Amino acid sequence: MEWNFKEICIIGLGLIGGSFALNLKLKGFNGKITAIDINPEAIEKGLDLEVIDDGSIKHSIAENADLIVIATPVGVYEEVIRQLLPFISSGTIVTDLGSVKGHIVFKCESLLKGKAPFVGGHPIAGTEKSGVDNAVENLFSGAKFIVTPTPNTDKTALEKVKNLWKNLGSEVIEMDPFFHDIVFASVSHLPHVVAYAIVDAIDKLSNEIGEDLFQLTGGGFRDFTRIAMSDPIMWRDICIENRDNLLKAIKTFKKSIEKVETLIEQVKSEELKDFFEKAKKKRSEVR
Amino acid sequence: MEWNFKEICIIGLGLIGGSFALNLKLKGFNGKITAIDINPEAIEKGLDLEVIDDGSIKHSIAENADLIVIATPVGVYEEVIRQLLPFISSGTIVTDLGSVKGHIVFKCESLLKGKAPFVGGHPIAGTEKSGVDNAVENLFSGAKFIVTPTPNTDKTALEKVKNLWKNLGSEVIEMDPFFHDIVFASVSHLPHVVAYAIVDAIDKLSNEIGEDLFQLTGGGFRDFTRIAMSDPIMWRDICIENRDNLLKAIKTFKKSIEKVETLIEQVKSEELKDFFEKAKKKRSEVR
Repeated sequence: MEWNFKEICIIGLGLIGGSFALNLKLKGFNGKITAIDINPEAIEKGLDLEVIDDGSIKHSIAENADLIVIATPVGVYEEVIRQLLPFISSGTIVTDLGSVKGHIVFKCESLLKGKAPFVGGHPIAGTEKSGVDNAVENLFSGAKFIVTPTPNTDKTALEKVKNLWKNLGSEVIEMDPFFHDIVFASVSHLPHVVAYAIVDAIDKLSNEIGEDLFQLTGGGFRDFTRIAMSDPIMWRDICIENRDNLLKAIKTFKKSIEKVETLIEQVKSEELKDFFEKAKKKRSEVR
Repeated sequence: MEWNFKEICIIGLGLIGGSFALNLKLKGFNGKITAIDINPEAIEKGLDLEVIDDGSIKHSIAENADLIVIATPVGVYEEVIRQLLPFISSGTIVTDLGSVKGHIVFKCESLLKGKAPFVGGHPIAGTEKSGVDNAVENLFSGAKFIVTPTPNTDKTALEKVKNLWKNLGSEVIEMDPFFHDIVFASVSHLPHVVAYAIVDAIDKLSNEIGEDLFQLTGGGFRDFTRIAMSDPIMWRDICIENRDNLLKAIKTFKKSIEKVETLIEQVKSEELKDFFEKAKKKRSEVR
């Protein structure tokens, strides 16, 4: 297995950054892995768990890395890159693991111009948990990894990043960064927003009837709202950064819920059954 | 283990009726189990799987049962009971496994008046699959079982039904039938409707952008929409029978989604984070 990198520095050692480090080790990455986190405890945990070889709250630790991987919430990318700039050595590639691409990829390219090539990436994997201590073995094996090259993308850097994710067991898919944001507004950002909203609604309904409804839920509800335990800062940033696409997806979803609402209100039994049947069929086709 | 019944007849041998039969056998129920289904294949499968001892498409097979368990979609209860009436022998108890209680319990009591005591029941368990061949071992172990007595309920019949569900490993909870419908409109019926609606929305968005978005989903989406594969007829009936409570829950949910929508639209970062944090906290408290 060809890794192409000697030292990888991860910025933001949370669940995704930590899982990335852990799986590099498990797949036999033979170079050094370092990490930067604003929280010294995250670095300590990463060292204790032996998923990183060195770490710091200071950006200077990135100076020998030939690959820098940004794994912070997307809202702080600009700040992160500005702090990194003095420590990026010649030949280093910068990539990321964020859930929003589009304008962010072009912003990163612009901030890094003349210093390092940037390759936007997004692993379609994760859990509702947070922190390096919840890092998951084989999280990326069999999962999709979206890479979002632009006309400015350095071809060699792109191939090296793609190869690294193939080594981690991912199915690498190239996608336009703006198209990426339209797609994931629908299949990922919308479901998260809906999950948070349904928990809010059930909290309100609990207050109205004076009964803690959460204690009367079954397994269906628990699976359905599991993603409402995801990190609030990460998701706040995603919603803000991808707001135009997300707002469009929310509008479409509201039309769908209002369609069902009307069918129930008007007791249109046959149409309601057809609506459910069509959705069941669509969902059942998902691999 | 005291079972109190010699012959149990299940009406509707689907996933829930079939799992009920299977788990009676597994827990050592020593009487006879029969089943009625409009679909002769369901009876054949039940016999092949040895979860029932006898079965028929004819209601006359219920004539020796001392417990009749209705496990059909709630929309056909009246028809089922009318067909059963000639075959209900003296001393027989009738119960059900439906997701809507309220007026349905009183309707069943009225239809059975002078023939048999009725005890409304609802196991808080299930899967998105259908059919007796998907019956699940230990489906009810550790799950809640809601029993909904009314002032008319026969106390001995109630105790016998409660005891049977305790034998199956369930935590039996008594609840007013109308209150039951308010509770489950929120924690079960609303999430199902939302899951069907989000699949509908993503289908529409797929058509708009000309890309099959369902093929780009991750594990979070799959868990989130698993319940959209539930049986359309069962859920159509639940939505129609519990429509007033469900419509109220949908209205509250729409307010919650519109709250998030506004926060995103107006880029209210702090408030959006707080909204997500509060939901995360509430959801994390669920056992």
